[in-house]
Amino acid sequence: MVDPSWIEQALERNKARREHFDEIAYTRLTDALGGWPRGTVFLGGRAVPGYPSIGRVLNLEQGLKQHFQAPFHAEEKIDGFNVRIVRHADTDLAFSRGGFVCPFTTDRLPDLMDLRIFDDEPDLVICGEVAGPGNPYLEGHPPDIDHEVVLRIFDLMRFDAPQFMATVERHDLLQRYGLPAVPYHGRFHADQPEAVRALLGELDRRGVEGLVLKEEGERQKRAKYVTPASVVQDLRAMGDALIDMPPEYFTNRLLRLVLILEESPALERPELRAELGAALIDPLLAAARAHRDTHKVAHHFRCRFRSRVNAERFIEHMRRVPQKEIHSSVRSLEQAEDGYWVLTFDRVFPRISGLLGNFLSGAQVYD
Amino acid sequence: MVDPSWIEQALERNKARREHFDEIAYTRLTDALGGWPRGTVFLGGRAVPGYPSIGRVLNLEQGLKQHFQAPFHAEEKIDGFNVRIVRHADTDLAFSRGGFVCPFTTDRLPDLMDLRIFDDEPDLVICGEVAGPGNPYLEGHPPDIDHEVVLRIFDLMRFDAPQFMATVERHDLLQRYGLPAVPYHGRFHADQPEAVRALLGELDRRGVEGLVLKEEGERQKRAKYVTPASVVQDLRAMGDALIDMPPEYFTNRLLRLVLILEESPALERPELRAELGAALIDPLLAAARAHRDTHKVAHHFRCRFRSRVNAERFIEHMRRVPQKEIHSSVRSLEQAEDGYWVLTFDRVFPRISGLLGNFLSGAQVYD
Repeated sequence: MVDPSWIEQALERNKARREHFDEIAYTRLTDALGGWPRGTVFLGGRAVPGYPSIGRVLNLEQGLKQHFQAPFHAEEKIDGFNVRIVRHADTDLAFSRGGFVCPFTTDRLPDLMDLRIFDDEPDLVICGEVAGPGNPYLEGHPPDIDHEVVLRIFDLMRFDAPQFMATVERHDLLQRYGLPAVPYHGRFHADQPEAVRALLGELDRRGVEGLVLKEEGERQKRAKYVTPASVVQDLRAMGDALIDMPPEYFTNRLLRLVLILEESPALERPELRAELGAALIDPLLAAARAHRDTHKVAHHFRCRFRSRVNAERFIEHMRRVPQKEIHSSVRSLEQAEDGYWVLTFDRVFPRISGLLGNFLSGAQVYD
Repeated sequence: MVDPSWIEQALERNKARREHFDEIAYTRLTDALGGWPRGTVFLGGRAVPGYPSIGRVLNLEQGLKQHFQAPFHAEEKIDGFNVRIVRHADTDLAFSRGGFVCPFTTDRLPDLMDLRIFDDEPDLVICGEVAGPGNPYLEGHPPDIDHEVVLRIFDLMRFDAPQFMATVERHDLLQRYGLPAVPYHGRFHADQPEAVRALLGELDRRGVEGLVLKEEGERQKRAKYVTPASVVQDLRAMGDALIDMPPEYFTNRLLRLVLILEESPALERPELRAELGAALIDPLLAAARAHRDTHKVAHHFRCRFRSRVNAERFIEHMRRVPQKEIHSSVRSLEQAEDGYWVLTFDRVFPRISGLLGNFLSGAQVYD
């Protein structure tokens, strides 16, 4: 139970905002406060702890030594979006990283997991990644998740307690209820960077995003490390939105790629440079060619909802949570033969759209 | 003759600054003002007009039509730094784009050109590019200028008159005095984008930076257009200074490259994507590897001066005109057997130096 006057204070200090979904009122933290991470949700007097950021290491050799004092588990990092799933007053809800109810994930929960675990464990907070080409937020998806969307669970918490269940206990519980866990890749020590690197080589060849490393024991220390393949995929995914993304999107990833190669020459592949060059040229080139007809650069999304009202809530959610000037434009919402409501929409990149139009028409630029 | 009270006003309004070189006092415009471009220099009551920016076009087909009303001349764009050379009270001086006396170019003027033209044409302002591996400002240089530095003249002006001499007249005058002009590539009309593109293909294969197009007649309309090769060279030149450059350095060039390819599929080469990828990976990878010993990322410069005092003035000039946090660190200044003073210095990139150190030591980053 969280003290209601504490939440009131957080609201007054502009560290929290009131939200609602259908009839359900909740408060989300817009900043870390009082030991609760940003994105923590207060709901019916209880807290759904925010999912804390995991620090990235760019050198395994030093990073493992520096951060891990006990053996750690290596779990597959999935290229999707982070959700926390809870049962509240007989309703199953999925919250986004920022602490909004995600209308898409909430709608599709019965497709993503068997929800009966909440009958026995009503105070569980299930943390996972929703990934696949049918997701409404991200351009990329793991190569082996090539149909619709799936949930991959990577942590369990409980209401009011910002700690994670131990890895082994979590595996047992998920297995008992037949719930989908992120792939597990073994237990390592800090003096085994070579073994982790060998594993990364395998994941890189399969196009997997990377690893999350989780220390055993009370410290709950974590770190993440990605593959070269995932860097190139990320750059390609947003290559045509070059100037609508923060410039760090590109520079951070180039730096990551180089530091991975510096440490792991075994991850070098003859075609890597050509793939990187193609990731930076081809999507933007295709966008410039298409621009003559479309006059804009946009990514097309298609996602399915069980109920029309949730699709409409999702449209409202996109309007409320814009990513800077990038906006979404709904194309259609129609019921398919299987009963699902199919929403199609575009994410439009206004800066590159305008600039391409300008340059293709012959304008001069003084740069 | 420029009204001294006008210059006083410009100083009061913070649009101009007083400078001096040796005993010579001058004022430079730090902003465009009253028809004079930024970088205009007032010297002994006369104006050395600033060299105006030339707008870049990214689509020839439309750009030529839109900007040129008369035939235009195509001149080679040289990858160097812009100077204006004048004679003032028996001293020959070279000014930088910003309106500083450049101690390096001023020192080396007798090596760069035959200065006797000023005996006959004392009010001439000679505009050109100084390029080559011995230049103290730029990392890159044209592939065919592979030794020391040269001057390539591309415009002539006169004191107090912010206009360019007509191309044909300029060619004649430079030829008469045996002065080095930028390579000339012919006269075209706005309806000949194909011919200009064919020329660009040739220049691209030779690694030339691009073209400056100059309309005949009174309008003095100009435009520039670069080659894919020059974009890749630029990116490679600063690839290891990834986060010390403005992010637009990288994004603008990627956009240029793509728009060139969009318009001119003939400029596609099978190896272009691999070259782009290598330009973005290899310099930074080499810097990360070297960082273990050097603990910094720096570019090494070596340039020669005729007089020691000018080398010292140049060192002072570097200190006065820093490029954001990028700083220069002198390594040595020694007289060689040929009598020249050889200055070696490093341009140090502090942000990437610090970040690489941090990451290579295993630090975690929350990005």
